[in-house]
Amino acid sequence: MPTIVVDVMPKAELLDPQGKAVSGAFARLGIQDFSQVRIGKRFELTVDGEVTDAVLAEARRVAEEVLSNSVIEDVVGVSVDGAEVRA
Amino acid sequence: MPTIVVDVMPKAELLDPQGKAVSGAFARLGIQDFSQVRIGKRFELTVDGEVTDAVLAEARRVAEEVLSNSVIEDVVGVSVDGAEVRA
Repeated sequence: MPTIVVDVMPKAELLDPQGKAVSGAFARLGIQDFSQVRIGKRFELTVDGEVTDAVLAEARRVAEEVLSNSVIEDVVGVSVDGAEVRA
Repeated sequence: MPTIVVDVMPKAELLDPQGKAVSGAFARLGIQDFSQVRIGKRFELTVDGEVTDAVLAEARRVAEEVLSNSVIEDVVGVSVDGAEVRA
């Protein structure tokens, strides 16, 4: 069954304490390749049947209105896994 | 600056109560297009300089050993945003 993936990240101007904590852990572990870590959410929405334009539009709407908080987060991606988007 | 994106999801056999809560919210809101919701994490690791094979290998290693808990989570993707992977 096709899956729609919605990626949500904290806004760039926010501190993201979880990401800072991971950055600190990297420093303590001697991992130096990554200068910054930010942590967001990945939602996988399973679709029964075909991913039509209407379903994709509904996914974009719920991504903005239900799955993310637009005060502190940005929806950075809505994409289809496991099936092509029907034109 | 290039960013390496690491996607981590709860294992398929786990319940994922957060995802179930969102599914329940969808039902109450009359959103019927999505039969299942699962929620994982998206890490963005900023790399200073070029994403070499060594940096990508290090990202894969930290994805498995630091960013995910292999008892309950799977690393479902490690990819480069904003720059090509050097061959």
